[in-house]
Amino acid sequence: MTTDSWLGGAAAIATLTFDVDAESPVLAAGAHYAEHLMTMTHQSYGPDVGVPRVLDMLDELGVPATFFIPGWVAQARPGLAASVVERGHEVAHHSYAHRAPTSMSEQEEREDFARAMAVFARQGIEIQGHRAALWGSRWQTPELVAEHGLRYDSSLMADDRPYRIGTARGELAELPVHWSLDDWEQYAFLPEPHIGSVIESPVKALELWRAELDGMRHYGCLFNLCCHPFLSGRPGRIMALRRLVEYALECGDVTFMRCRDLAAAVLADPALTARPLPEPPSYP
Amino acid sequence: MTTDSWLGGAAAIATLTFDVDAESPVLAAGAHYAEHLMTMTHQSYGPDVGVPRVLDMLDELGVPATFFIPGWVAQARPGLAASVVERGHEVAHHSYAHRAPTSMSEQEEREDFARAMAVFARQGIEIQGHRAALWGSRWQTPELVAEHGLRYDSSLMADDRPYRIGTARGELAELPVHWSLDDWEQYAFLPEPHIGSVIESPVKALELWRAELDGMRHYGCLFNLCCHPFLSGRPGRIMALRRLVEYALECGDVTFMRCRDLAAAVLADPALTARPLPEPPSYP
Amino acid sequence: MTTDSWLGGAAAIATLTFDVDAESPVLAAGAHYAEHLMTMTHQSYGPDVGVPRVLDMLDELGVPATFFIPGWVAQARPGLAASVVERGHEVAHHSYAHRAPTSMSEQEEREDFARAMAVFARQGIEIQGHRAALWGSRWQTPELVAEHGLRYDSSLMADDRPYRIGTARGELAELPVHWSLDDWEQYAFLPEPHIGSVIESPVKALELWRAELDGMRHYGCLFNLCCHPFLSGRPGRIMALRRLVEYALECGDVTFMRCRDLAAAVLADPALTARPLPEPPSYP
Amino acid sequence: MTTDSWLGGAAAIATLTFDVDAESPVLAAGAHYAEHLMTMTHQSYGPDVGVPRVLDMLDELGVPATFFIPGWVAQARPGLAASVVERGHEVAHHSYAHRAPTSMSEQEEREDFARAMAVFARQGIEIQGHRAALWGSRWQTPELVAEHGLRYDSSLMADDRPYRIGTARGELAELPVHWSLDDWEQYAFLPEPHIGSVIESPVKALELWRAELDGMRHYGCLFNLCCHPFLSGRPGRIMALRRLVEYALECGDVTFMRCRDLAAAVLADPALTARPLPEPPSYP
Repeated sequence: MTTDSWLGGAAAIATLTFDVDAESPVLAAGAHYAEHLMTMTHQSYGPDVGVPRVLDMLDELGVPATFFIPGWVAQARPGLAASVVERGHEVAHHSYAHRAPTSMSEQEEREDFARAMAVFARQGIEIQGHRAALWGSRWQTPELVAEHGLRYDSSLMADDRPYRIGTARGELAELPVHWSLDDWEQYAFLPEPHIGSVIESPVKALELWRAELDGMRHYGCLFNLCCHPFLSGRPGRIMALRRLVEYALECGDVTFMRCRDLAAAVLADPALTARPLPEPPSYP
Repeated sequence: MTTDSWLGGAAAIATLTFDVDAESPVLAAGAHYAEHLMTMTHQSYGPDVGVPRVLDMLDELGVPATFFIPGWVAQARPGLAASVVERGHEVAHHSYAHRAPTSMSEQEEREDFARAMAVFARQGIEIQGHRAALWGSRWQTPELVAEHGLRYDSSLMADDRPYRIGTARGELAELPVHWSLDDWEQYAFLPEPHIGSVIESPVKALELWRAELDGMRHYGCLFNLCCHPFLSGRPGRIMALRRLVEYALECGDVTFMRCRDLAAAVLADPALTARPLPEPPSYP
Repeated sequence: MTTDSWLGGAAAIATLTFDVDAESPVLAAGAHYAEHLMTMTHQSYGPDVGVPRVLDMLDELGVPATFFIPGWVAQARPGLAASVVERGHEVAHHSYAHRAPTSMSEQEEREDFARAMAVFARQGIEIQGHRAALWGSRWQTPELVAEHGLRYDSSLMADDRPYRIGTARGELAELPVHWSLDDWEQYAFLPEPHIGSVIESPVKALELWRAELDGMRHYGCLFNLCCHPFLSGRPGRIMALRRLVEYALECGDVTFMRCRDLAAAVLADPALTARPLPEPPSYP
Repeated sequence: MTTDSWLGGAAAIATLTFDVDAESPVLAAGAHYAEHLMTMTHQSYGPDVGVPRVLDMLDELGVPATFFIPGWVAQARPGLAASVVERGHEVAHHSYAHRAPTSMSEQEEREDFARAMAVFARQGIEIQGHRAALWGSRWQTPELVAEHGLRYDSSLMADDRPYRIGTARGELAELPVHWSLDDWEQYAFLPEPHIGSVIESPVKALELWRAELDGMRHYGCLFNLCCHPFLSGRPGRIMALRRLVEYALECGDVTFMRCRDLAAAVLADPALTARPLPEPPSYP
């Protein structure tokens, strides 16, 4: 491994990412949920209580992070994105209305994408990367990301190491995600709309993520953790997340990066070659 | 932190709450379940076996608690609410028929609310607080609670510390709840009506709640635990609950309170300002 | 506590019960599953592999057990019930076709009940007790059990100690069950028909049941464990069950009984009074 | 136990099997998922990242394995099956399109079966065994397997030790599977199509499988572990799988075999007698 590798000499790279969805996933499931007061407060806890608590924790630990914010959320809470950038973290694109591209027409996806870009432009927030709502990318999504001049995407699962995607509108770094590195599967519970059924102990989530981190240190991977402030911002969970970061720091061979900085390293890594996406598979 | 803070010098406040739903959630899901003998006995275990066992445990540990009882349950078991008050605990409003406000018209909600108030009035039980059935509050619910002269609500999730809600009919203390501090998600199982699919070990529930309590002691929060006697009244589970309370007492920095006493402290805390509820969010 | 108490001086009574359902629950969900070879072998494992293994384990540990067998299963495997009785254990009634009484008309329930009685009569198997398929008793079921001259039922959940039910056709001992003392919720998995979604480790099931046993020793209860040979007969699970029984034996204050022997003690206990079933609850 | 027993003197036999399904189970659930880029990458991770990692691990541990590959997958990735055989492992039949026999007509099943055989014949891959997609065998499936000259099937659950099935077209060894020895139930998560809801920690999966292995060493069984490279190929999980194999090797009484080698031992074991499949059960 050379020093110009995306790993930069580390055993694994860690990107802490926070999807600040607020009410948008619930309202995308049904606009009438706006009338459900408890449900709305369940979601507003994320930006209002979780995000400040996460920002403080990151300060205390001295690690950077990336916040994926739907444009609608940034618009409804005008100071939110700036409060993240001011603390040295990155804000990235997470759709406008938190609807999956696979649930929209190509035209709807294009309009939703541009609308979020416009919100951030008005707020003076520079955007370099994108994560699809619900990770629900269509085959055309990466090209759309490149078309807007972004450098990376973080929605796909073809590897557990970053890779490069060639599109007709330019090249992207892909920083892959996975269900097992998402706090939603461990913590989300809401009967209506149904977003999950099991509430795991933070002890279990920590055990799972630490096992994955150790495996990724063995194999030289990207530990791309996806957390949601309305879930991981709660007291017992953020303490577990803090312990996870402390463990990674103690390992001494894990580097924490903002996604944009990792993407730059990936795009500059001479060992990685951009490949165009294959055709969708043909099935009998 | 001043001594007139709602925390009163403690690291965290703990409110033990017991929702004594009896048969009502099952019958709300379908009146024909009244004919299902096993299902009815599954639910009647709560008031008949669970509540006396919980009351004895509270006596032994010397901690107060709050019992949220649907009016229909209090009416069907005339001595139930009094048996709670006699032991020094609080009885609070938990709807009449355990139907969520979000599933009722405003007029139905108003009638259901008043009907429960009338039951408790006839039984000489003074009511100061409310918890919506299924925590299913609508935007109008807090005002209805204030209109009846109650001091607090305990159904929302906008924070993990108490807050104050201003309504057109007066101010309320909100003592927020959360799915992770509810025994239903850990223990409830019934195939028809389906109320849950996983039965966790009490060891896991204790681990989860202890992690949350420790986090809340770190952040100065309200540990508002919601238990159901038909679930947590079972032998292995009440032993775990006892160990949780013993742990909290050993910490030395957790104060146990009835909800009404906490609500009074919240309403008297000069650092908390009542805010009107925001408008329901507008979503494209 | 006097020596003529049903507890007989023990801290808790343990009844090991095995529901030998074989293919019947799957076929009750859809007769076409008879064509699904894998599914049928999944179920036949119970009587063919699980039951002999359970019988050997019970011999080695020297504890008695009760086997609830649907009449259809006993009929299709003529030597099955006798093989249980020959080893000193009890066979009891578990419907004919493993359909819940709540899913049948009263006439269908009566015919199903009698048909199972006839199978056992032809096989010379004496029956003293009953457990409803899926524990799905209707309000009329206990009277039907008494009408056939049986002494006990084991399908209800009004308590975690035995109780006595008065019916128009005589008195029954009720040996209550509970979801948390059933191996189905811990181990059952089958996508079609869907019978469960989570496969827990035997370590977790052992932890759960041991916690409940310890709680029941504290409160003087009936540890009425319900296992299914197609689930708990598997190697890792039967080893955990063996450890549970060994633990209970080491406690020194737990008595293992056949259900019929416990039922006799319950019916002779002067401290227990038979109460008629209440009316089904009336709900608005 | 004689030395010509299928156990060959071991306490248990272990067959590590990997079902390389790639995109096929998702496309079988809906051809339109081909347009879902994230979903397709979630699946392609299996052959592209998981399989090479598994092959390396097997080399390092020095144990053989069997890879069940749908014909469609082998066809779409021409070098895949050969890469497995070159490392000394076995490739076996896993349908063409990963549709369950129970969801096809007999004619469709026959064509699907033959189509997969033709793919492997063209690739020069010799096939000796079969595993039904989704383990969804019909009553006619074993005869079809025998008709094509294969020696074994691995889809049924009538025992946890191998057995012999007599069919009109010859005899098969059955190497039984079980849900509890499948990584799908522990790890699979995908909301659309829904393939699972819970992501367990590798620590829990290891605990479960080790408990089953220990039980199988006690009872003399076949530990037939079914893993999927898109699931168990992930870093934390493959480390747990490695520890499981290391544990089994340390036991000193577990023999690892390819399925074909075990099948040959089963068919040569004089203590095992082939029995024809019984009739499908008749149910009222």
